[in-house]
Amino acid sequence: MHYNAELIAVGTELLLGNIANTDAQMISEGLSTLGIDVYYHTVVGDNPQRLREALDIARRRANIIITTGGLGPTYDDLTKQTICEAFGRPLELHEDIWQGIQDYFARRMKGGKITENNKQQAMLPVGCTVFENPVGTAPGCAFEEGGVHVLMLPGPPYECRYMFEHQAVPYLQGLTRERIFSHEIRIFGSGESQVEATLHEMMVKGSNPTLAPYAKTGEVMLRATAKAHSREEAEAMLQPMIAQVRETLGDVVYGVDVSSLEEVVLRLLREKGLTLSAAESCTGGLLAKRITDLAGASAVFRGGVVSYTNAVKEQALGVPGELLERYGAVSEPVAIAMAEGCRRLCGSDYALSVTGVAGPDRDDRDNPVGTVFVALASREGTICRQLDLTRGRSRGHIRHLAASNAFDLLRRKLQGLPLE
Amino acid sequence: MHYNAELIAVGTELLLGNIANTDAQMISEGLSTLGIDVYYHTVVGDNPQRLREALDIARRRANIIITTGGLGPTYDDLTKQTICEAFGRPLELHEDIWQGIQDYFARRMKGGKITENNKQQAMLPVGCTVFENPVGTAPGCAFEEGGVHVLMLPGPPYECRYMFEHQAVPYLQGLTRERIFSHEIRIFGSGESQVEATLHEMMVKGSNPTLAPYAKTGEVMLRATAKAHSREEAEAMLQPMIAQVRETLGDVVYGVDVSSLEEVVLRLLREKGLTLSAAESCTGGLLAKRITDLAGASAVFRGGVVSYTNAVKEQALGVPGELLERYGAVSEPVAIAMAEGCRRLCGSDYALSVTGVAGPDRDDRDNPVGTVFVALASREGTICRQLDLTRGRSRGHIRHLAASNAFDLLRRKLQGLPLE
Repeated sequence: MHYNAELIAVGTELLLGNIANTDAQMISEGLSTLGIDVYYHTVVGDNPQRLREALDIARRRANIIITTGGLGPTYDDLTKQTICEAFGRPLELHEDIWQGIQDYFARRMKGGKITENNKQQAMLPVGCTVFENPVGTAPGCAFEEGGVHVLMLPGPPYECRYMFEHQAVPYLQGLTRERIFSHEIRIFGSGESQVEATLHEMMVKGSNPTLAPYAKTGEVMLRATAKAHSREEAEAMLQPMIAQVRETLGDVVYGVDVSSLEEVVLRLLREKGLTLSAAESCTGGLLAKRITDLAGASAVFRGGVVSYTNAVKEQALGVPGELLERYGAVSEPVAIAMAEGCRRLCGSDYALSVTGVAGPDRDDRDNPVGTVFVALASREGTICRQLDLTRGRSRGHIRHLAASNAFDLLRRKLQGLPLE
Repeated sequence: MHYNAELIAVGTELLLGNIANTDAQMISEGLSTLGIDVYYHTVVGDNPQRLREALDIARRRANIIITTGGLGPTYDDLTKQTICEAFGRPLELHEDIWQGIQDYFARRMKGGKITENNKQQAMLPVGCTVFENPVGTAPGCAFEEGGVHVLMLPGPPYECRYMFEHQAVPYLQGLTRERIFSHEIRIFGSGESQVEATLHEMMVKGSNPTLAPYAKTGEVMLRATAKAHSREEAEAMLQPMIAQVRETLGDVVYGVDVSSLEEVVLRLLREKGLTLSAAESCTGGLLAKRITDLAGASAVFRGGVVSYTNAVKEQALGVPGELLERYGAVSEPVAIAMAEGCRRLCGSDYALSVTGVAGPDRDDRDNPVGTVFVALASREGTICRQLDLTRGRSRGHIRHLAASNAFDLLRRKLQGLPLE
């Protein structure tokens, strides 16, 4: 059986451009992993007639329809009713779900009033598979009618993702057999066009396995994908491909199936039982924020200083006023003094520092936006790198790249690689 | 003439979930400003037959069709050809555009080879309005056929936005007259359902102006929208509506047409010539990061300390070891000592502190995940609030809410509001 899916997002806020249809992206990515083709996405407003039309079109050209949104308790939430009319399935009250919604309100919405409208959420198509919603109130569901599988998921991205992963994916896996397996190869320090040029032959060769590049902020991610009946069969195709990528690109490959540079740095530090601190000027806390985003950061990250003024650089980090005077805050000597002062203050094995001009304006010494110094202090001494991020597209972009470069410097140090 | 538009995005990468359809969001937002209704978005892959089907459906139900993507030089870029077949318009070579593409290559793509495929990009429908593309190679265009306006824009978001704003908007303004004006009202400290219940009458009343709620992370945004022929006419409807919202909801309304709590805090501090610093435990730099995301932060933000361990709390912030011993790091006395120590260290007028349990695990004193204290030190003394964020959905969510609450505490202090 060949399955192809159409996604229908229901919500006027999408047609007004208030939000992007990220649910469709998330679900499409998941369906691609399951080997289910997607030929169309449709977005329609909170309008029963137009939703009905979209359903009638979709059922003619797809055998899986996944809707997102319109399951809430308010008057404009009409997905279920409209689908049930289109497919001739009556709604019925599920007492256990109604009880669950009442419990949820009692537990979570202290003082919030439950209304008759909420009861609508416990009405589901006769004979459907219920998708419970432990992270919200609106349950989803799925049923099959005339060879078409209809799945309804809530619109809020967090609830949608949760229900898709925990309920829709198992439901869909019951339909199909061949699966898609993939690995993500992460690269820092080499641009997308460079990676594409180097690996061009591998990328155009064959349809199983495949290798495809995706540009991330300042990074490149390659996805190696294989279609197979089992994990073993897939790995026999994927592992040689990954080994070849590593061999071709060298140490700019910083990890496979990791989500970020900071995750690799955190893991390396944990393995070695070493600690880190950070002194930040232009990144203003971003470095600390990125590493403490990760659960388990407290095992290696001791803390740091955001020294947004010279006075704080002097008082908190002990940067000599004379250095600031002579070289300016955006300079190699200051970056080094910041890292060393932070390492002392926090008593950590390593300390990273970042000082630079994130913009929008040049600094008081007329350094151009994008001039950045990162330094790494350890017991073997301190190294410093000047970065040229003048091509950075915005303040946020420059800050992100500066932090990534700092993490990569530490990654290279911890892996014993050349520090360029 | 009533105009309604349908957006058709062409690109297999959208159906694979590699990217979200942000072009559709951007264009929808723009069309809403022009007062043009959007009833459907469609996404289709690089497949001429399915694109043709989507066009046939769209021309039956919309009188403006805007396509994005598929204008590039490669074999799978087929939007123009397919549209021209569907609408019976032949393509013709525009010599001046062909010259422009050759010039662009010579100038920008040093070493890049121009191919016969690039010539495809200079082929445009007979009698169309050309949309030039100074930020890329693929030009867009527009024509009218049988009462339907068809506009073709490139897919890459930067090029798409540029061409939409500079070429498509003037084209569309030539068709329509009435425009949409709106204001965003930002609310912190009141949930979406509570806001909806309080303002229900205003929300369902009439179709011009309208008031609609949107949930943001831990916040609510209300959009007040009016259709009018001029800004003045619109404001005459919108300002009384905004005044009524403010009166009904009170001081949980933190701003109109501002993007975040930190933006309001930054503006208030600037106006008063006051400075801020931050001592962070569980937010790990997020507070500093959020305020330094804003250009101009250096005028008010002096810096801060990320004290992720007790040792750093003692050494950098001067929190007495005895307090840490007796009450634990997640406690009111420690939050207060952190804020006061940070204010001293950074020499700022105000200092915020945050200490809490972001998860995934309870802390060493068995405080549940979501237990958070925020404190605000000033020359008038220090206040502290315990937050119950145990309903926080994730580590990231709890950290975000903790930082937002800290900003709101300072916002209330600066505005002379009751501190709850």
